Amino acid sequence: MGKLEAYVRKGERVTIRDVALGAGVSVATASKALNEQGRMTVETRERVQRVAQRLGFRPNAMARALVAQRSFTLGLLTNDTYGRFTLPVVAGLSAAMADRGVSVFLCAVEDDPERVRLNLNAMEDKRVDGLVIAGKRIDRALPIALPPQRMPVVYVNAACPPQGVGFVPDDDGGAYAAVTHLLGLGRRRVTHVSGPRDFEAVGLREQGWRRALDEAGLPVPKAALFGSWSEGFGYETGHALMRTPRAADRPDAVFCGNDQIARGLIDALMHLGVRVPDDVAVVGFDNWEIFAQATRPPLTTVDMELKELGSQAGLTLLDMIDGKPVTEGLQRRPCRLAVRQSCGGQAR
Amino acid sequence: MGKLEAYVRKGERVTIRDVALGAGVSVATASKALNEQGRMTVETRERVQRVAQRLGFRPNAMARALVAQRSFTLGLLTNDTYGRFTLPVVAGLSAAMADRGVSVFLCAVEDDPERVRLNLNAMEDKRVDGLVIAGKRIDRALPIALPPQRMPVVYVNAACPPQGVGFVPDDDGGAYAAVTHLLGLGRRRVTHVSGPRDFEAVGLREQGWRRALDEAGLPVPKAALFGSWSEGFGYETGHALMRTPRAADRPDAVFCGNDQIARGLIDALMHLGVRVPDDVAVVGFDNWEIFAQATRPPLTTVDMELKELGSQAGLTLLDMIDGKPVTEGLQRRPCRLAVRQSCGGQAR
Repeated sequence: MGKLEAYVRKGERVTIRDVALGAGVSVATASKALNEQGRMTVETRERVQRVAQRLGFRPNAMARALVAQRSFTLGLLTNDTYGRFTLPVVAGLSAAMADRGVSVFLCAVEDDPERVRLNLNAMEDKRVDGLVIAGKRIDRALPIALPPQRMPVVYVNAACPPQGVGFVPDDDGGAYAAVTHLLGLGRRRVTHVSGPRDFEAVGLREQGWRRALDEAGLPVPKAALFGSWSEGFGYETGHALMRTPRAADRPDAVFCGNDQIARGLIDALMHLGVRVPDDVAVVGFDNWEIFAQATRPPLTTVDMELKELGSQAGLTLLDMIDGKPVTEGLQRRPCRLAVRQSCGGQAR
Repeated sequence: MGKLEAYVRKGERVTIRDVALGAGVSVATASKALNEQGRMTVETRERVQRVAQRLGFRPNAMARALVAQRSFTLGLLTNDTYGRFTLPVVAGLSAAMADRGVSVFLCAVEDDPERVRLNLNAMEDKRVDGLVIAGKRIDRALPIALPPQRMPVVYVNAACPPQGVGFVPDDDGGAYAAVTHLLGLGRRRVTHVSGPRDFEAVGLREQGWRRALDEAGLPVPKAALFGSWSEGFGYETGHALMRTPRAADRPDAVFCGNDQIARGLIDALMHLGVRVPDDVAVVGFDNWEIFAQATRPPLTTVDMELKELGSQAGLTLLDMIDGKPVTEGLQRRPCRLAVRQSCGGQAR
């Protein structure tokens, strides 16, 4: 078989023809032997398989796909090309799919309908088995007209049409867990400082905060403080909160709508000589590690488990492609509290 | 053609058979008409093309790929699944490729050789036309045994083998531009605070800093201050620099090896009542916007133009796939100084 192995040394792709030649059979017989089909002696079948292995033959996935009407590929469309939300989703999705022989096309579409159309056409041309549509807001749809052809779609971190299948973090539950943790550490005046009111996630996190206070029998403030998702807003609000004349009216804990707000707020408290967590405990939301670990003290914050979300979305999409029944509608997946020092530590 | 359009309404994929039926020709004739091949009347060809357009027929990319021996797909392997370096590279690559009908598989491999092998096999099975290998350090190779079959590869932000083709930012040039800008604003004692010494990028940025001082005829300090890529290191170093007994020995500017160090350093200066940029000007490296814009004052910093790097890598890979000559070896692509307030503004 020295002559055959020369193909490999030359770096050429090994084809079914090389295998057939090496085993001394026809291409058709070689193909049947490798697909465990057709009638032939056990010796022939084994010889073909041995030669294929020795030459490093890999069946052509595209040819198989044409027969199976499956391409074992998915498309991921996302408008979050610089943000931090999609990357963990992609990592979770990509790992879960790779383990199942499915590869993922990444289409960065921004919010440009023309770019969406271009990428959707490419995904159709490449005959992907399904699509994951990932956004950066749970209440915004991407500017995507659903594929004209029947194609399974799963939504992640984006608005999901009725009868669609979507996955988002449980914002209300995450907020509830954060505030409950603060109450368990003895805090009684927990203020909530968050992003813009028109984000659905802001409303859900406020609701979880309210529910935790209410269940603990504590007075619920009329409203949270809403602003922007920025350190600057956290910084200003930290100063504003400490200007409250009576110390007894000042918060002993602040639950923030994201890690940037928490970071700015802690900076302001430090600047004013207010000790965190001794005087005021602080909890964030996102568990953006590079922020959360650099905060002084390191930030306790809600982790949305985005990697798990990506993996779940992919597995559900594979079930849809296989024609298995899946739960319709939006699923809110549990968050996890990452406890560091800014809250005062583990619950007593 | 009402009957035919019913296929579209049912949401079925339109096939070449539907087109043939609609045009009243054989499948072979329809195929030849759409591929501008074979002999037939102009009327027949145009009729087939009209029907195909009306039904929204899209040729099967996989079938075309089998014939063309091209899949119009690329694989991107990266070990930077959470970092900020790969995302802009991917965005630039994905956009440039989408414009050319090429789609990109994203393979998140971390630094796990088993995961690399799994993904490389998948890329071979899917017959990608080439690979982009993207890392997070210019001096580290990913744990990748080169594909056994001949396959064009381009490296981005990672070590590149001899005779390989790679793209990295011009760290030396970026540092030189930053320091030259500070000198142009009248600064004379520019200290350099950077990450761990064993990073090639650290050495190159130090070299650019040294060269700028040297060319300006200024004394070059014996060494930069090396530590970790963290806010904490910047914060400590800010305090340490200001403890220098004689004011005339303290820097009037600090060029930092990344934005996190710059952020921590500015926080320390603020804490000590040192004004930025009035007393000490500060410049960072990375232009990680969420950091750079939140710094008080906003941070002047070197942008590595990673989106452009991704786009360039993709276009070069397409040239290699097409058999066109490309420049071998590592190309260092220009950086850009993003001027904000922390340096004192635009040069006079």
